[in-house]
Amino acid sequence: MNSEEEVLEFVKNGHQQYLPHLSIDPVIFGYHNQQLKILLLKWKGQNGWGLPGGFIKREEPLSEAAHRILAERTGLQDLFLQQFHLFGDSPYRLRERSAGEFKEKYGLDVDDDNWLFVRTLSIGYFALVDYSKVSVRTDFFTEGYQWWDVNEIPPLLFDHNEAVEKALATLRLQIYHQPIGYSLLPEKFTLPEIHTLYETILGKELDQRNFSKKLVALGLIRKLNEQRAIGPHRSPYLYQFEKEAYEDALKHGLVHTY
Amino acid sequence: MNSEEEVLEFVKNGHQQYLPHLSIDPVIFGYHNQQLKILLLKWKGQNGWGLPGGFIKREEPLSEAAHRILAERTGLQDLFLQQFHLFGDSPYRLRERSAGEFKEKYGLDVDDDNWLFVRTLSIGYFALVDYSKVSVRTDFFTEGYQWWDVNEIPPLLFDHNEAVEKALATLRLQIYHQPIGYSLLPEKFTLPEIHTLYETILGKELDQRNFSKKLVALGLIRKLNEQRAIGPHRSPYLYQFEKEAYEDALKHGLVHTY
Repeated sequence: MNSEEEVLEFVKNGHQQYLPHLSIDPVIFGYHNQQLKILLLKWKGQNGWGLPGGFIKREEPLSEAAHRILAERTGLQDLFLQQFHLFGDSPYRLRERSAGEFKEKYGLDVDDDNWLFVRTLSIGYFALVDYSKVSVRTDFFTEGYQWWDVNEIPPLLFDHNEAVEKALATLRLQIYHQPIGYSLLPEKFTLPEIHTLYETILGKELDQRNFSKKLVALGLIRKLNEQRAIGPHRSPYLYQFEKEAYEDALKHGLVHTY
Repeated sequence: MNSEEEVLEFVKNGHQQYLPHLSIDPVIFGYHNQQLKILLLKWKGQNGWGLPGGFIKREEPLSEAAHRILAERTGLQDLFLQQFHLFGDSPYRLRERSAGEFKEKYGLDVDDDNWLFVRTLSIGYFALVDYSKVSVRTDFFTEGYQWWDVNEIPPLLFDHNEAVEKALATLRLQIYHQPIGYSLLPEKFTLPEIHTLYETILGKELDQRNFSKKLVALGLIRKLNEQRAIGPHRSPYLYQFEKEAYEDALKHGLVHTY
């Protein structure tokens, strides 16, 4: 959606295709070389940064919509993507918008009763990607993008700081319940690889021996009878995620292992 | 909302007061005397059981709406209430309804383009209450209620079995991250009291000594310099929730303690 014609069609008739009152605004975490970043877009006419977003088609299952929006923004399919919250409390999530505001920001003339101007709740999803593989796509409403370090997120538009904070807290809370890293690490990985990933996500050091003992004890990773030769005298054992154990843990709670 | 007049007003003009496309359908867990149950309502004209529900007012913050709906159904205020999922995937969450269906179930005549018949996504919240304190209120759309044991939930209407399962899984997963029990136990409680509560919620035995050691080690409860006399030679120490530690854990993840 880049030409003014396409955008006007979306603004004027989008309600025939999309549900009003709900948007999906994914927090896209990007990991690469021991760095954890978040994808932010520069919104036109607002002089500020915010999350990417999109709408649900009228006959589209919710999670399909989330995957579609993510793919449209990043070019990537089948990512680890998880819903974490529906935002509907902040003053921004209570207000309606006006044609005047819209005209000022985007230079487009529309009526005041446009479907985009109603109160809109935001569905939070987070995704984990290797950011070196992403080709970000901006559109008519956005004029640039940047991967921001999670520790240096600027004040964002709308209620998006709240979304970023909650996404990060959820990611950290679930790091031992969810196959975090499943789409980031190779299928078979070494302990130092997963250790580095988890330290980066948590933003703190983890004792290497306890960490790997715990992951194995939780049944979340499994040691393979296979080594990777990475140098003379260096051939660490390889490990694999136990996807079923994760799914089981999700279903029943990890409570027996705490 | 019980008289036919009130109901017709709600059905015909409710869109002026409420947002379309979204309902809040709380899973209300009731605990009492070592039993964990869920509140289900018998829906009129459907010969089946389902969760209670309600709609968000147009200018009402989302979590305020959830508390209001819960209070309307149970008569209780300020309960532990937590959002856990937005449901929008199942076939039931994709379909629209018709005036014919509505007439058949409730005997009311309305137009096909009524606001209630649009695709409606369901916002899952769960609450924890002492069910002996609840006075359940049914309304025009429901004709009875019952507290069902969590292990004996029947096939439910709509996609409500999915909601119940996910609520229970979330409750169990979060039992060491959230002040679960905060609204169920007295402000100062004994270890056997919280131990019994947690065993009931998890549906399994927990080693008493490890359990209490862990709760203290996690910093989630604190031993008081105070005892309760419950019989000759029996005066166990009292404990209290560390609400700040819970909040801290929620914010940063409990990761340092695993």
